This record gives sequence, C-alpha cells and structure tokens, in this order.
Amino acid sequence: MTHFADKLLDACAAKGAPVCVGVDPVYDRLPDAVRKGDPLDAIANWGAGLLEAVADHVPCVKIQSACFERYHAPGVAVFEKLLDQAHQLGLITIGDAKRGDIGISAAHYAAANTADALTINSYLGDDSIEPFMEVAQSNGTGLFALVRTSNPGGDALQQLQLADGRSVAQAVAALIARIGDQSIGDSGYSLLGAVVGATKPSEAASLRKLMPQQIFLVPGFGAQGGTADDVKACFNADGRGALITASRSVIYAHQSCPDIDWQQAVANSAADLNHQIASIL
Amino acid sequence: MTHFADKLLDACAAKGAPVCVGVDPVYDRLPDAVRKGDPLDAIANWGAGLLEAVADHVPCVKIQSACFERYHAPGVAVFEKLLDQAHQLGLITIGDAKRGDIGISAAHYAAANTADALTINSYLGDDSIEPFMEVAQSNGTGLFALVRTSNPGGDALQQLQLADGRSVAQAVAALIARIGDQSIGDSGYSLLGAVVGATKPSEAASLRKLMPQQIFLVPGFGAQGGTADDVKACFNADGRGALITASRSVIYAHQSCPDIDWQQAVANSAADLNHQIASIL
Repeated sequence: MTHFADKLLDACAAKGAPVCVGVDPVYDRLPDAVRKGDPLDAIANWGAGLLEAVADHVPCVKIQSACFERYHAPGVAVFEKLLDQAHQLGLITIGDAKRGDIGISAAHYAAANTADALTINSYLGDDSIEPFMEVAQSNGTGLFALVRTSNPGGDALQQLQLADGRSVAQAVAALIARIGDQSIGDSGYSLLGAVVGATKPSEAASLRKLMPQQIFLVPGFGAQGGTADDVKACFNADGRGALITASRSVIYAHQSCPDIDWQQAVANSAADLNHQIASIL
Repeated sequence: MTHFADKLLDACAAKGAPVCVGVDPVYDRLPDAVRKGDPLDAIANWGAGLLEAVADHVPCVKIQSACFERYHAPGVAVFEKLLDQAHQLGLITIGDAKRGDIGISAAHYAAANTADALTINSYLGDDSIEPFMEVAQSNGTGLFALVRTSNPGGDALQQLQLADGRSVAQAVAALIARIGDQSIGDSGYSLLGAVVGATKPSEAASLRKLMPQQIFLVPGFGAQGGTADDVKACFNADGRGALITASRSVIYAHQSCPDIDWQQAVANSAADLNHQIASIL
C-alpha cells in the first residue's frame, strides 16, 4: 500500500505541477449547454465532462461535498460517483467535506469517505483527529486539517493572539505537526496535511516552518485573489509540500471564453494553472 | 412563522423538562431483537422504534449525521427519513452534522439541512456563520455553534489562553453572542445557540455570562460523565436557556435492563432523564 503523501507527490511530479482543481458547482453558473433538465443530472453530466477535460493537466481534484449534499441522498450518490470517475481517470481525489467530530462519530465520518483524502476541522482537538488518522493509516488515504483559511472572517478566531505570543492558527499548526508525525511517507511528508489559504506570504512562511512535513492544500488561487507570488511561500525549499487549488477560474472558464466549447475552455484553463505554478518552482 | 428559540422553549415547557435524546447508533450495540438482516435497514427500523419510545418523554432529538453517512447515500436517506418521522411525532429535531464552510458552500450546507436545527463549527469565523444565519432566519430553523466541547482533546485548542486573558472558547462565545444578536425570539433567546459540553460548572457559568441569549446544547449527560449538578450552571437564573442531551444512557438502555422489551427500557430511561433535569430546575 502506497503512503498517501508519496502517491500525491508522485502524481504531481508526473503531471509537472502540484495543482488541483476545486469542483464546487453551482447550477446557475454552469455553461448553457449543460443547464437543462433536472439540475442534479445536469451537474452530474457537467462534472463527468469537467473531469475528462482536466485529467491531462492536473494530478488532483478536490470535490466540494456541500454542493452535492444540498440535493440530499441523490446528491451524495452523485458526489461519490464523480469521485469514482475521477479515480478511474487517474486523478487523486480530495473530498472537501471539512468534517469534525469526536470518537465514534469521527470514525464514522472517516469510514464514510470514498476519496483518496478528506478535509477535516480541528476545532475539537487531538481526539477528534485521531480517529481520522487511524482510518487513514489503515487504508492509505490522506487528510487535510483546517489551519488557516483565506476568508475575511477567518481572522476572527484564527488570528487571535495567544498569551505565549503565537496566533491560534500557529497553535493549531503545532498540533497538526505533532499528530501528523505518526505517519510520514518515504517522501518525508505526512498523510496529515494542512489547509492554508493563499493570503499573506509572511504568514504562510511562518506556518511552513511550524509544519515542515505537512503538505499544504492551498485554496484561493486565481479567482479568490491569490497570485503565484503569494503561494511561493507555501512550498518548502525543495519545491515540494504544497498543492495549489483553483476552482472558479477553471470550472467556470466558459464565462471568459464564450466562443469555444466549454470543455475546451476548462482544459485550457487547467493547462494554464499547471504552467503558472510550474513556472514558479 | 414561529422563531426557532420560541418553538424549542415552548416544546420544553410542554414536556416538563429541556431535554434531548442523542441518536447516534452503532449497529453492534443495538438490541439483539433488531440486529438482523441489512445493518442500515436494522438501524432504520430501530430508529423508528426509538423515536416512538421517547416521543412522550422528551421535546427534542438530536440525530448524528456521521452514523448514517457511513452508509453513503442510502444512509443519508435514512437520516432524513428519521428526521421526518421525528417531526411527525411532534419532536423538535437537531441534525448533528457539525458543518462548517464559507460562502456558497456554507449556504449549500444550510440548504441541505432538513432538521429544525443544525450544529455548526465556527473555526472559519463570522463569514462561515452568516450564510447559515441567513437561511435559518428565512425558514425558521435554528443553529448550535460549537463553543466548548467536553472531550479531553477539546482543551488542546479551546482552552488556550489569549493575550487578553480570555480562553479561545470565550472568544468564540463572544463571536456567537454578537452574531446571534441578529435574531432574538419573543422568548429572549437567539436562533443561534451554542454547544457547551457538560464539564466544569465554573466554565459553564463563565460562558453563560458571555452568551446570555444563547440556548446551550449540552451533550455528555449520563454516560459521558456529566451530572445534574454539573449542568445546573448551563441554565440562566430563570431556569431556561439550556437543552440537556443524553445519548448512550437512553438509546442503549436495553443493556442495563436486559429483561424488559428494549423500547420499554428506552422509554423508562427517557422518562428518567426528564425527571432528573426537571428536578434541578
């Protein structure tokens, strides 16, 4: 069984850049060509086409659970079907569900996950992460714990200053580094990665120091305002250790290129994401 | 449209005690009488019988999403069916899903919820709570945000001391009080409540002061070690403002009463929970 971190880094090397497409569809924003009939069917068809369009250009996709859960049980079935289709296309899959609970509930969330990796929320502390770690270690999957998010409101809690001088996010980073140390792959990286928003380079650099063995899942590239320079600080000196995610700029590429087929627009945009990140490493 | 807080407090008054049964089934722990055939079918049948058994004794049930999600889309269908059955029995329902995300993803989680209230995780800050608030205000549902959990690992983050002398949990409490102020019912309570574990009375009292208008959802009564004295501090002076939840002591009551029908054991235990909490108010 290959360790998740090794599998992910190998896939990034094979595709030439550590990039990820975030799949979080909102029906109203999909291309006209697919917006017909039942919305969930349309999302399912669009999703299958999107995965085909990006598969040659990126090693990984992150699929947002909320966008499917809103369609209840049938939506969850589509979410899992897309994860399966992505897998068959050779893509590494991240289920972006931000789950968090303790004990048996955490173990159940871990068991529910059919992706190669799952995002988790660490507000509940060590014993909320351990059950996810146990399952991940036993089945070769990975985890990305929320440490620092790029939304404006993220500051409200994550940037509070502690009595010892650290920020809350830095304390969470130390917790993740400590727990993640339980499972390091041959690549030197842990199966437990960290979600670190592409915001201020100085902050990313400080979190990088605290979590040298965590792969950073970095959302917010492109449409959310992160630039190539911003994300540089998320990488280790060896050019590894981060996975840069773009969502809207890729999945809604048809909006800026209305004259070409939507799948071609998506493929072009995914290729562009690959080149942009490859060029800074 | 009745405000969620008013609806919940009225239901508690009608049943004589502000108590809640936590429904988080693990197949292996269910009564022998129901453990046969397909596990999910067994859980669905057991759940329907459990709801009937508790409906006369408690105003509210909290159903744990993870225990159903582990059975994938069919599990989610059973989760929603049980919420619907509980509703038909006149019970207030809380979907214990601890969701947390930002923007459109948070709005989608809010739209996915079919319970009267949903538990949410506030690590992502203000703008992760606002989309849930908007949906709750528009459809008369409620929210319970994680503030302080009773698991041992909860201390790792929630009890860190800030430079201003507060704990992280106290800072989150202030955030929840501020946002919750947007929607106060006639009862004087907000639709945005707080999850506060039944641990140390001194800590509960301090959080009570910071969140006078929040209804506390207090898990951990009974099997998890919380006592009636421990939970007293979660109430306001008027004897309102907390909802005390017991799970294992009620749903697995058959284990301590093997000689009677499991539904009767559950009903007895739910009645006992009601009397214990009523007696301290």
